[in-house]
Amino acid sequence: MKLQVTQANLSKALGTVARVANSRNPLAILSNVLLKTEKNRLSISATNLDIGITHLVGSKVEKEGSITVPARLMQDFVSSLPDSVLNLELTDNKLHITTDQYESSINGILADDFPVMPAIKEGVTWKIPAAEFKKALSQVVFAASADDARPVLNGVYFNSVGSQAVAAATDSYRLAENKIGKSGKAVNFLVPASAAQDLLRIIADNDKEVIVTHDDQQVLFTVGDVSLVARLIEGNYPDYRKLIPSKFSTVAKLARADLINIAKVSSLFARESAGSITIKADKNTGVSINAIASQLGENTAKAEAKITGGGEITLNSRYLIEALSAFSSEDIDFCFNGKLEPIILRSSGEPNYLHLIMPLRS
Amino acid sequence: MKLQVTQANLSKALGTVARVANSRNPLAILSNVLLKTEKNRLSISATNLDIGITHLVGSKVEKEGSITVPARLMQDFVSSLPDSVLNLELTDNKLHITTDQYESSINGILADDFPVMPAIKEGVTWKIPAAEFKKALSQVVFAASADDARPVLNGVYFNSVGSQAVAAATDSYRLAENKIGKSGKAVNFLVPASAAQDLLRIIADNDKEVIVTHDDQQVLFTVGDVSLVARLIEGNYPDYRKLIPSKFSTVAKLARADLINIAKVSSLFARESAGSITIKADKNTGVSINAIASQLGENTAKAEAKITGGGEITLNSRYLIEALSAFSSEDIDFCFNGKLEPIILRSSGEPNYLHLIMPLRS
Repeated sequence: MKLQVTQANLSKALGTVARVANSRNPLAILSNVLLKTEKNRLSISATNLDIGITHLVGSKVEKEGSITVPARLMQDFVSSLPDSVLNLELTDNKLHITTDQYESSINGILADDFPVMPAIKEGVTWKIPAAEFKKALSQVVFAASADDARPVLNGVYFNSVGSQAVAAATDSYRLAENKIGKSGKAVNFLVPASAAQDLLRIIADNDKEVIVTHDDQQVLFTVGDVSLVARLIEGNYPDYRKLIPSKFSTVAKLARADLINIAKVSSLFARESAGSITIKADKNTGVSINAIASQLGENTAKAEAKITGGGEITLNSRYLIEALSAFSSEDIDFCFNGKLEPIILRSSGEPNYLHLIMPLRS
Repeated sequence: MKLQVTQANLSKALGTVARVANSRNPLAILSNVLLKTEKNRLSISATNLDIGITHLVGSKVEKEGSITVPARLMQDFVSSLPDSVLNLELTDNKLHITTDQYESSINGILADDFPVMPAIKEGVTWKIPAAEFKKALSQVVFAASADDARPVLNGVYFNSVGSQAVAAATDSYRLAENKIGKSGKAVNFLVPASAAQDLLRIIADNDKEVIVTHDDQQVLFTVGDVSLVARLIEGNYPDYRKLIPSKFSTVAKLARADLINIAKVSSLFARESAGSITIKADKNTGVSINAIASQLGENTAKAEAKITGGGEITLNSRYLIEALSAFSSEDIDFCFNGKLEPIILRSSGEPNYLHLIMPLRS
């Protein structure tokens, strides 16, 4: 292998893929990145066996070849170099990287040993506008569970309502659902939330579309020169739609920034009570949040709101703050029924997005 | 106690003092801040028994009084409030804080129990221009030891050469020394590096002078409305001046940014060897740094330099990078003698500052 590549391109590609490589994995080669010439391009890949990411960059290839090198060293090294043309040459499993100022050699492991994720041979393919998809997915993915007890809840559930693709995630305490564009055919698969997070990082602001290809086992997302393949989570996703109330006895319309502010201040007094805050909607006085810390003190905070109905409900302040922060519109509707039923956050400015939070017993 | 204070002033004062309060201290009151009216001002204090910080802010005092409240909650709470006038009122050891939107009550502990550091009765007092002092002290303090084995090395040593005050710090592997202004009288005392770090945070860009007062036990730094008192470290500071070479067989003059860059890149290859890098000065080829990682590979990096003499020396890359980063001038002199003698970094643009690093055995 002998080639030339710009520092900027190689550094960007290493930044995309290297975080998937894991230096703590007992299989040493999984802490490496694979460099491989593909005609007049250089392919840079990393995998943790569940997710694989490949970034192709333009390169002046003099001699084809491939090698794997330690991901962290390679990324830190290349990102520290000044922006210039780098000469890469392989001799005896040592990758030599030279510029005017620097001469390095990095010890590699043969590319033959690098585990490559199987290709998707017969899959369904559809395209989604990139910016819209990125925003919609980012509003959903954080609601997935971080707890391994129920693996299906560690995923983002891609499914469809008619020709409309929908993404949903829940940790059983809160649920987020968003429309993510037209899939054409009906889809139904479960992507690990960690892969969805990696995908969000990959989609750049100037990317036009995301191409989705999946079969029963894997999904491939292609964005420009980057592709991410992930092993799907097996299992049946809960029938979450039956949880979503369609009517509400109380709806409070208010400025989202106001509700975030009073929720944040209240959460400071809710540290002793596992985040428990009580939200009250009153036609005359607006929305107020009360939090009581038996040791430290208590706090009541108010915000103006337009209210139909009235009542109070107790929530985990973290879930409320995270949900409110996921919206981008100025106004928010805070909707609920009795004390034991889930609340819904929605905004007329973001009609595709819905966020549900289960109440705490007060 | 009943008073009014602006959110901005109270939040700033809490930001200055609250970090000294320690919520892990078994003495509960040390995790509190003391609020106390002083004529038409509010004094906000915290202490960890070694350091005490007090910030005075303007306030409309209706009724005098004092109380201590949990520092972290108070700081987080006040900083979350919108900028407005806060009403503070004490009833039954509960501090009520109210605005248009918020009503809080925070449980306090009686101010009588708060440990106040003793006043300095007969001390030496001198003044230093604030900006100059801040820069000089920041170039020194990071060289102090973080290891408790030799307490004197945890301090910044204030001493004088004639009427010139000097600050020095060393962890026995490196040493930094800087002139910090005229003290008038001879001074000789040892300030905990942690207190010096706190002092650096307190000095704002628009502060004019720092007033230093000390006796045998304590030092008081006063900067505008803020005062910091610290218990001095007892013990004799090593006679460090005899370590500083006055003649060098090799001096390399080069751009500081170039030397930082090649040191940083080289340090990536020095992770396996506890940071060991070898710097070579050669009249014909300039300065080069070589680092070898037996497992990962090796690297040689070059920079242009004007060299008298020539030779090589092995250093810890972290010490070299930290020292170079402490300078602000464009050019640096890298000066050394044999392989076993300390190197000196100095710059004609910062004639008061000197940084010494002990070599590693190569």
